[in-house]
Amino acid sequence: MNVKGRHFRTIWKDEGEKSCVRIIDQRKLPHRFVIEELATVAQVAVAIRDMHVRGAGLIGATAGYGMAIAASTAPAEFDAFLRQSADTLIATRPTAVNLAWAVERQMREISKSVSREEKIKTAWRTAGEIADEDADWCRRIGLHGLELIRTLSLKKGGAPVNVLTHCNAGWLAFVDHGSATAPIYAAHDDGLAVHVWVDETRPRSQGAKLTAWELGEHGVPHTLIADNTGGHLMQHGMVDLVIVGTDRTTRCGDVANKIGTYLKALASKDNDVPFYVALPSSTFDWSMRDGLREIPIEERGGDEVKFAEGWHEGHLIEVLVAPASSPAANYGFDVTPARLITGLITERGICPASEEGILSLFPERAQTTPDIPPGGRGFHRGR
Amino acid sequence: MNVKGRHFRTIWKDEGEKSCVRIIDQRKLPHRFVIEELATVAQVAVAIRDMHVRGAGLIGATAGYGMAIAASTAPAEFDAFLRQSADTLIATRPTAVNLAWAVERQMREISKSVSREEKIKTAWRTAGEIADEDADWCRRIGLHGLELIRTLSLKKGGAPVNVLTHCNAGWLAFVDHGSATAPIYAAHDDGLAVHVWVDETRPRSQGAKLTAWELGEHGVPHTLIADNTGGHLMQHGMVDLVIVGTDRTTRCGDVANKIGTYLKALASKDNDVPFYVALPSSTFDWSMRDGLREIPIEERGGDEVKFAEGWHEGHLIEVLVAPASSPAANYGFDVTPARLITGLITERGICPASEEGILSLFPERAQTTPDIPPGGRGFHRGR
Repeated sequence: MNVKGRHFRTIWKDEGEKSCVRIIDQRKLPHRFVIEELATVAQVAVAIRDMHVRGAGLIGATAGYGMAIAASTAPAEFDAFLRQSADTLIATRPTAVNLAWAVERQMREISKSVSREEKIKTAWRTAGEIADEDADWCRRIGLHGLELIRTLSLKKGGAPVNVLTHCNAGWLAFVDHGSATAPIYAAHDDGLAVHVWVDETRPRSQGAKLTAWELGEHGVPHTLIADNTGGHLMQHGMVDLVIVGTDRTTRCGDVANKIGTYLKALASKDNDVPFYVALPSSTFDWSMRDGLREIPIEERGGDEVKFAEGWHEGHLIEVLVAPASSPAANYGFDVTPARLITGLITERGICPASEEGILSLFPERAQTTPDIPPGGRGFHRGR
Repeated sequence: MNVKGRHFRTIWKDEGEKSCVRIIDQRKLPHRFVIEELATVAQVAVAIRDMHVRGAGLIGATAGYGMAIAASTAPAEFDAFLRQSADTLIATRPTAVNLAWAVERQMREISKSVSREEKIKTAWRTAGEIADEDADWCRRIGLHGLELIRTLSLKKGGAPVNVLTHCNAGWLAFVDHGSATAPIYAAHDDGLAVHVWVDETRPRSQGAKLTAWELGEHGVPHTLIADNTGGHLMQHGMVDLVIVGTDRTTRCGDVANKIGTYLKALASKDNDVPFYVALPSSTFDWSMRDGLREIPIEERGGDEVKFAEGWHEGHLIEVLVAPASSPAANYGFDVTPARLITGLITERGICPASEEGILSLFPERAQTTPDIPPGGRGFHRGR
């Protein structure tokens, strides 16, 4: 999507140097737009571990490029260095499933080539494919979701369609387009009037920091709100549609997403507001049925709740917003049961959040198989 | 309740000086505990207007004491000064109904006395009565609510009863005990094991700043959570009871309270968690029936959402948590429909949130009268 009027992906190969990629260092967003060059596996590992990049799709793409950099910068012991780089990258965020999946895909592809030169070429080609696939899946989610917004827009006689979203399932979390934001960008670019209510998403405020920023840069009208506000807006007819992302979706349509998603789904149900979850099918966990019982929920440090991070006099600082002595609990995700979800927007189309609905788009998954797709096991810490 | 082991009210008459009261300056809580002396009407007006004190009950009590200070410090033109002081105090927060009510009560009482000396005595006695009544109503709310917690405690075999609350309906918002917190303090002081989940309550974070602090000072076990978290906790059986306060309650039991309350009520309903609202009956608006249609919702400045206020290196500062150019919306309250409320805890007992239930405790209100009680008209900006 666009930043200051120019198209950007969240990661791209440097045109000049063969063995180098560039990323947007997301840590200082929305206050500073910093582009960072990654030229070594160590730099890629730091970028993933310290969250210069985040989001399931982008982490996978970064790991893919990390393996290409490994191939390009390998010493004489090529295979040993590659294996070691793979281990280094996988260890940066052990629960990010796309990461291990991208690294293993690279190992598999590279092993098919024979010469060192071919292996390097294969690694870069595969990295590019991983990134392109991610962007393309999101683009297709956008096209399917666009039709939902178009229908609402017609119903409203062209008045702005108000979409509420939670956290950042935006292009910053993928290579381009995003998942929850893809239909919004598609509608905006298609000339439909759309306005987005952006949940702040405490404690890490990804909505305020990332979603508001990327929508603003692309020119999409939006309004930031506290996480407490969505219910009130829905009670007063000010939300036409909710679209959120997901970190893991069971084969029966239960959705684990950023903490607080469940509360918005309840308010949607209570006010007859359509509630959609947008996802590339890589986030389905085909082995799970009951999200509430089966999906483990990450607990993070309480200081994220006790402190707020923000910009003050040219610096990013943390301020204490609670008594220093009070304990805090910090659950990263909650599970929204399928019964509260109007539909899932996938790269193959839109389906009901039910096993039957999902299998109508993914019939090849009718049998639960032990083969685990990206996003299939372990818990996304995509944030 | 207690602060550092010593009992405090939120406002009290200075024992040494006749014409002087003391308050807790709540602006620097929880970071600094500052006691402030108010000796002039101007000082009282600043304390109310700039929110050194806040909360419906405490604002009323402060206004009552403000009129006593007016009487004590009046020049020769006693009546004119009193009327002028009344106008000054009422203008500090025009929508705080308890404020006007307390001032008018003082004017009425004072006018019954003849000599200047008697008038001054009456004013101080009335101020004390207003404060005592507020504390006593809250104490009685506590005793009624205590029985709810005792029942849950027995059911749990003495294991801690987990209560979730939103915003600050604590003793800091009243003269003592609080409304939503009164049953919690009563249970804790009675030796029952109780633990409180404290919603942060963005954007002004009254939960993190005030509720966590006052519970901590009184020794009540509690855990701070982001506003997004309550639904997840209820899904996993970690909340036994929700108690919140209210800024205005219709005669049919709809409740306006801090934005986000409605979302917690929805989660309570979805998970069969009892959801109670604690209130002194002064917050009933006997003239209203349908909360969603009739109660006006205050909109505040968007900067409260875009910034977070907190403590950093010995100073209270604000940090920007969003893009400077993104607009933000800031609705202060939402309305929880009576159908989501298990019961109302009043100073007269507990009743269902319905006209029939409420009138069973307040039969004298069976006829809608044009006479407006404190809390009866205009919108509380109690916070």
